[in-house]
Amino acid sequence: MDDKVSLIVFSGDMDKVMASFIIATGAAAMGSQVNMFFTFWGISAIKKETIYAKKGIMERMLTFMLPKDINKLPLSKMNMGGMGSWMMKKLMKKKRVASLQELLEMAQDLEVNFIVCQMSMDVMGIDKSELIDGVNVGGVASFLGEAQESKISMFV
Amino acid sequence: MDDKVSLIVFSGDMDKVMASFIIATGAAAMGSQVNMFFTFWGISAIKKETIYAKKGIMERMLTFMLPKDINKLPLSKMNMGGMGSWMMKKLMKKKRVASLQELLEMAQDLEVNFIVCQMSMDVMGIDKSELIDGVNVGGVASFLGEAQESKISMFV
Amino acid sequence: MDDKVSLIVFSGDMDKVMASFIIATGAAAMGSQVNMFFTFWGISAIKKETIYAKKGIMERMLTFMLPKDINKLPLSKMNMGGMGSWMMKKLMKKKRVASLQELLEMAQDLEVNFIVCQMSMDVMGIDKSELIDGVNVGGVASFLGEAQESKISMFV
Repeated sequence: MDDKVSLIVFSGDMDKVMASFIIATGAAAMGSQVNMFFTFWGISAIKKETIYAKKGIMERMLTFMLPKDINKLPLSKMNMGGMGSWMMKKLMKKKRVASLQELLEMAQDLEVNFIVCQMSMDVMGIDKSELIDGVNVGGVASFLGEAQESKISMFV
Repeated sequence: MDDKVSLIVFSGDMDKVMASFIIATGAAAMGSQVNMFFTFWGISAIKKETIYAKKGIMERMLTFMLPKDINKLPLSKMNMGGMGSWMMKKLMKKKRVASLQELLEMAQDLEVNFIVCQMSMDVMGIDKSELIDGVNVGGVASFLGEAQESKISMFV
Repeated sequence: MDDKVSLIVFSGDMDKVMASFIIATGAAAMGSQVNMFFTFWGISAIKKETIYAKKGIMERMLTFMLPKDINKLPLSKMNMGGMGSWMMKKLMKKKRVASLQELLEMAQDLEVNFIVCQMSMDVMGIDKSELIDGVNVGGVASFLGEAQESKISMFV
């Protein structure tokens, strides 16, 4: 069981989320059982749709300001109002590197275990229906249980 | 000894420091011996008071610009001059999530081992009297010694 | 083989790159075999020179905006157009802390294994001739292979 890989995806930045998925899909392709624990800003990477109803005012504001899905994530540096992430996507396409959306689907095909942080969902007012299918809801204990059995654990 | 958990708290951002403490207290509650190594900006999380005397000009400038204690940390994203972190604290309180101050005290109660980076203290001109009680001063070797015995080591 | 240390240097910020090198040289000095995998912004830390010829327009723009070498890296916080990193360097010199350039050379002397991410080089249009000597080019599989044999793996 020692060849598990467990990642905390805390960041919601395009470049860091991409790094997480490249590590995750790489490790899964090499035969490891991989866990990705999405928390805080990282939850934007597994959003499917945005539902404003039932949210309070502050939750609506937060929802409004956060990226709508994995294709809308900003670069951590030089985003320049979206120009940086647009340029990066162009460069990736030109070099035939998989897009974030493709990496996400690859991770799903490789049966990477997606866990979303219960506490972050509560605080930010995110409902499970807003997330992509097949995501497990869990707390820090779920992550730590997996990480204790992992050879590689990283915080991204 | 293999169930130790060792974290480097490099970031001084409210959200990342919170993630560190949630991991630390979670692991300690599950029975692991946990080390938190505070370095660079992360030292703001264990500051008690600010002493300007004995500091040089550049150290004073740095001290003036850095958060005064764990309650003053900014959000890593959308801080908007403090409005973001204020909103996050409101949302956390509403959902009855422990505040950073409470998480810190929980970590102390659970006997999490706090180590502060000697080199960062030297460079930034921070005196041990400015930090909360019960913190051990150490270098990277202290951290690595613990991390070598840890099942989980992460850089936050 | 279990005392290996493997770091992903994703960040190109002065402070985070410094933390990586302090961990890497510390671990190498304690006898561990250390791997540093430079990817994305982190590649700025191992740049030697900038060659504009053969680059496309977007690659030139990216190259122009990125730091020229390890001495030009910005601080992750309070960089203030370079004043922050200048101040940090002054403080480090005053306290006789090794500069980034010195830490890099120390890592080389201690035979730290430098791996640069093939995919990042492709996307950003970086040629191996632009990097310092002795760097190995590899993919995520190279990193994961080393990390699986490492006691400590971290993402910086």
